[in-house]
Amino acid sequence: MDSTDWQTLCAERKKQQLESIPKEWLIPLPPRKQGNVLDIPGTCGLLSERELEITNTTDVDTLLGRLALGQWSSVEVTTAFYKRAIIAQQLTNCLTEIFIEKALARAKEVDDALKHTGKPVGPLHGLPISLKDQFCIKGMDTIMGYAAWIGKPAEKDCVLVEILYDLGAVPFVRTNVPQTLMWGETYNHVFGRTTNPWNRYMTPGGSSGGEGALVALRGSPLGVGTDIGGSVRIPAAFCGLYGLRPSYERLPYCNAVNAQEGQESISSVLGPMTNSLSGVRRFTKAIIDAKPWNRDPLAVRKPWNGREYELEEHGHGLGMCFAIMWDNDAVKPHPPLVRAMQLTKAALEAAGHKVIDWIPHRHLEIYRNAERIFAADEGHDYRTECAKSGEPLIMTMRPDEDAHHYPLDQPFCAVLRGDPVHLTAYELWQLHKEKRMLRKSHLDYWEATKAVTGTGRPVDAIIAPAVATAACPHGTNSDAFWTTMCNVLDLTCSVFPVTYADKELDKKAPPHEFRNSEDEVIYNMYDPELFHGLPVCLQLIGRTLEEEGVIGMTEVVDKAIKEFKV
Amino acid sequence: MDSTDWQTLCAERKKQQLESIPKEWLIPLPPRKQGNVLDIPGTCGLLSERELEITNTTDVDTLLGRLALGQWSSVEVTTAFYKRAIIAQQLTNCLTEIFIEKALARAKEVDDALKHTGKPVGPLHGLPISLKDQFCIKGMDTIMGYAAWIGKPAEKDCVLVEILYDLGAVPFVRTNVPQTLMWGETYNHVFGRTTNPWNRYMTPGGSSGGEGALVALRGSPLGVGTDIGGSVRIPAAFCGLYGLRPSYERLPYCNAVNAQEGQESISSVLGPMTNSLSGVRRFTKAIIDAKPWNRDPLAVRKPWNGREYELEEHGHGLGMCFAIMWDNDAVKPHPPLVRAMQLTKAALEAAGHKVIDWIPHRHLEIYRNAERIFAADEGHDYRTECAKSGEPLIMTMRPDEDAHHYPLDQPFCAVLRGDPVHLTAYELWQLHKEKRMLRKSHLDYWEATKAVTGTGRPVDAIIAPAVATAACPHGTNSDAFWTTMCNVLDLTCSVFPVTYADKELDKKAPPHEFRNSEDEVIYNMYDPELFHGLPVCLQLIGRTLEEEGVIGMTEVVDKAIKEFKV
Repeated sequence: MDSTDWQTLCAERKKQQLESIPKEWLIPLPPRKQGNVLDIPGTCGLLSERELEITNTTDVDTLLGRLALGQWSSVEVTTAFYKRAIIAQQLTNCLTEIFIEKALARAKEVDDALKHTGKPVGPLHGLPISLKDQFCIKGMDTIMGYAAWIGKPAEKDCVLVEILYDLGAVPFVRTNVPQTLMWGETYNHVFGRTTNPWNRYMTPGGSSGGEGALVALRGSPLGVGTDIGGSVRIPAAFCGLYGLRPSYERLPYCNAVNAQEGQESISSVLGPMTNSLSGVRRFTKAIIDAKPWNRDPLAVRKPWNGREYELEEHGHGLGMCFAIMWDNDAVKPHPPLVRAMQLTKAALEAAGHKVIDWIPHRHLEIYRNAERIFAADEGHDYRTECAKSGEPLIMTMRPDEDAHHYPLDQPFCAVLRGDPVHLTAYELWQLHKEKRMLRKSHLDYWEATKAVTGTGRPVDAIIAPAVATAACPHGTNSDAFWTTMCNVLDLTCSVFPVTYADKELDKKAPPHEFRNSEDEVIYNMYDPELFHGLPVCLQLIGRTLEEEGVIGMTEVVDKAIKEFKV
Repeated sequence: MDSTDWQTLCAERKKQQLESIPKEWLIPLPPRKQGNVLDIPGTCGLLSERELEITNTTDVDTLLGRLALGQWSSVEVTTAFYKRAIIAQQLTNCLTEIFIEKALARAKEVDDALKHTGKPVGPLHGLPISLKDQFCIKGMDTIMGYAAWIGKPAEKDCVLVEILYDLGAVPFVRTNVPQTLMWGETYNHVFGRTTNPWNRYMTPGGSSGGEGALVALRGSPLGVGTDIGGSVRIPAAFCGLYGLRPSYERLPYCNAVNAQEGQESISSVLGPMTNSLSGVRRFTKAIIDAKPWNRDPLAVRKPWNGREYELEEHGHGLGMCFAIMWDNDAVKPHPPLVRAMQLTKAALEAAGHKVIDWIPHRHLEIYRNAERIFAADEGHDYRTECAKSGEPLIMTMRPDEDAHHYPLDQPFCAVLRGDPVHLTAYELWQLHKEKRMLRKSHLDYWEATKAVTGTGRPVDAIIAPAVATAACPHGTNSDAFWTTMCNVLDLTCSVFPVTYADKELDKKAPPHEFRNSEDEVIYNMYDPELFHGLPVCLQLIGRTLEEEGVIGMTEVVDKAIKEFKV
């Protein structure tokens, strides 16, 4: 580290970022107070009609089909999404690395290959893909929200990026994260705060919040986030997207940077975030088909299993039994979430499925186990990275200049404040024993539902909120209770959009007996006006290493909801 | 704990064990000095001709075939193996729990089911299976070499045992282990020392040494051991057996007891030990086909992959390229091992395969990483379990009453003596980072062999010793250098018998430059007379989660060796 202070370093880096945007791509900005900015890409005039057509094509299958046939070149598709990404950046501050020249050169390369060979380079031919600020690209910094990581270019691509290139994809931007990655919001000292394009007063969630905001604005057809306690699912849910949290090591994390690197008790995983379920399927299958285990020693050698995707073990997708988790004994969902679950239940029943209630099983014990594991080093990892530049550890996601009266602002993991709990290796092993016991208990509990489903099988999947709220004001998202369960139990799960919060339909519920401070504050925060119009998503929770089945079942649920609404 | 001292507790338990043997199964014992006792089951007169025919049937496919057709009943097969196991116990002290009545009742149950339904109960119908003293059976102690664990009956079967019952198998004895499980030999205060039936002056290895001795005497057609640093492979190699070390969590460990429970950095795995490769295949496939992931939350959801077993990714088993690791930069193999590798190389070349040299890659760094992980709790786990009864932590495997001049006697993991290294969770995470880096480095190194194999693929499998020596005198086995590599890198590997040490062929080699004290002592220990006649086995090392491929390739190698010898 040279002697430059961290503020100067951050300011210089932010200035560089601004300078990397072509002047002609700068747009007139809407008033700072304007919440919803989703229309602006269509109205600001930067995108041509054709570029709007391209970027409004949310179905990744369609995009890939046109790219593979050369109907749309990768250069024009990448240019269109790049312009829109830069609009998204100006509206929500969602980007970190901007590398237009490199991305367009790559797009031209795959265009040339297609022209030359008549064949697409691979199953993701020509598709621009955005990446959370952890996926190293050779020659570029991976700052991950730490001032100290500025100016340290990667020596090589991480395994995911290597594979994406092999598959014909075009990595084209990287996206913002919170310092430490352990917040369900997105703010750091280098790149600042990312806002939610549905309402900029709200957080897009986190830690993959840059992806959330970018993809919601259709500035990227598909982004890659990571999830250790909800970091793919929270922003997907807050931004109205589809997302997948695969099980540990199904997709290759090797050579990506991370917080608490080496913490293998509850592993962070990477997953897609996109506007179409076809994007989730195409990405996941393409990466697995590339045999990531030949490059990432931790990646699970399990080929894509077509029979699991066709739901062979779930009645071939007919007459399934889903269970809805209406509450989790920790925080009660807001009325829009309850209505989304009611709607999903009705849609599934109309499609010939059975829907029963899921009674939560040791939910808080499971959550507390994770909390203690994440805090096992007393925050030493975070403090070490901050100390390298002198930047302070961020203790709140609340914006100084936009204080509001919603009081809640607690980090995911208690380590950043409160009593430090510094564990020995032996003590950590005892938490692993507890975790194993909880996982076994939950598995047996799930298997035992065979007695009540009427299908001869246990419950096929659980449906639950990803967060108790729709996107909430900056500094108030404290709820990882719904997501963390899947990280501890390593359950594959997806997020899918269901509806929008509606002040007419989603009246405030009468108070219930509050289980804890989060529960109380979240209840008090609900105001039909405040949340009106925001997207409402749910989680579908399957079994460990059941990516194929979870994608297949999410398709069933998504179709049921769409047909039911019509 | 009541006030009974640990010596009394152990003596009483040992007496109980003796009393559980039917008087009529006691045999006249050979002189204590008699080394090789393999003939005694055939000559002692306890087994009938038919019982000898049954127990001499080493091919598990044949046994299962006759059992499934009812040609041999499970009661007669179980009785025959039980008698022979009791002979083995009298000769080598290989057993812990003896439960004849329960096993025969179970055997009768499957016989009745076959009579009643005309169908075998499952793919392991009627087969007696021995279990290392970690696999809990309801109502029975699982002492695992600790005095304090006497008199604590299990409340339920572990998942492996549940599945074995479902598959029609007959668990019939449990087998001895060393205290702490972290020695490559087999001795504890409760049940004492297990000896090697090829030469009782020698150790059968460990920690699954009870299985090794039992299966070598054909007192069990198939045993289940566990392996965290070589504990399946060392006894398999010392006793002339086939064995498999699967990758982490491929087979269900749930609810079995363990040392350092919760240590998940380098996970112990379970694997079969048997006199036939068909036993390895039948056991592994049957357990995986039973979908262990529905009972063990950690078990990998990866169905048995027939295409991997047929070696689709290894040229369908034709014209493969193997690499032999003649040395590992740590301890040089004894002459019989070198000759076994030469023989294997010639056999493979005669069968149309290519054989190249494997230059070890960061072998010692990999080993040291494991050593530090195993010692991360400063032995706190072991000391805690010993303290419960007051028994001392065992610091040597050397028998007091049979001292010999071979000096080496070091535990697997430095924690039992020497400088304690008590790690924090954060420090453990740094070891995980190092381990990931080493795994990536080794994977890339292996992949890069594509350039030299001539097959268009990387090396198909590595062939190496499992231990630098054949079975060595009690208290002298210090070599886990060859095995631990696979535990750290999580490489699936098998052990297979190749030849026998031969004082005429295996002359002492001239001294080399010693790399460390183990290397020097192991060199000095070699004496053609001492090792004459002992079985010599090798390891076949494949990729992570490549159980099917490793079994398939071991079949190829085994066949090549058998055909070459003819």
